[in-house]
Amino acid sequence: MNNHTVESCSKAKMAIRDTLDVVGGKWKLVLISVLQSGKKGFNELSREAGISPRILSKELHEMEMNGLVSRTVCHTKPITVQYELTAYSQTLNEVLIAMQKWGHLHRQKIISRE
Amino acid sequence: MNNHTVESCSKAKMAIRDTLDVVGGKWKLVLISVLQSGKKGFNELSREAGISPRILSKELHEMEMNGLVSRTVCHTKPITVQYELTAYSQTLNEVLIAMQKWGHLHRQKIISRE
Repeated sequence: MNNHTVESCSKAKMAIRDTLDVVGGKWKLVLISVLQSGKKGFNELSREAGISPRILSKELHEMEMNGLVSRTVCHTKPITVQYELTAYSQTLNEVLIAMQKWGHLHRQKIISRE
Repeated sequence: MNNHTVESCSKAKMAIRDTLDVVGGKWKLVLISVLQSGKKGFNELSREAGISPRILSKELHEMEMNGLVSRTVCHTKPITVQYELTAYSQTLNEVLIAMQKWGHLHRQKIISRE
């Protein structure tokens, strides 16, 4: 990333902002990572991600709007809802892997400093 | 990412959370991207990133604490302060590049849908 022009920099800034608009915040990438092991019900997701039902509901709704998660109503009694990653969400794999790698690295750095 | 065990999933979740703790939020990755074109003064950074001085000051302080940015006081009159990326901040390049790529891709998707 050495060739910086005003245009390339503002494009890069815009793209990073776009990504943060869609998957920024505390939860969405964590939810994607949790859903990578397969579809899950609402309560299961809430428990596994450690996220309150109120916030989870809002996050899942936004992820659905952005085509990252699909929601299936199952006609059980009582009715249950299952959430699943879409094919499009897989385009985020590179971001997720890079963040996982960096998180490991940073934790090692902190541990070695203590 | 097909081999999911409880342990590997919780490690992945933790690493993603660690990364979000350090560079999550609206601004830090944008600031790193802006500083990639070289060291900058406070007002210059505020203008280029489009971020208010109060928030910028808080963000830069947190980035300094995490070893991502260094702060140099220049003995000019009046005193000025310059901010620069550290070598350690370069370990975030993969995250930044992945987010830039995804931001472009997502914008294309939105545009082609309209």
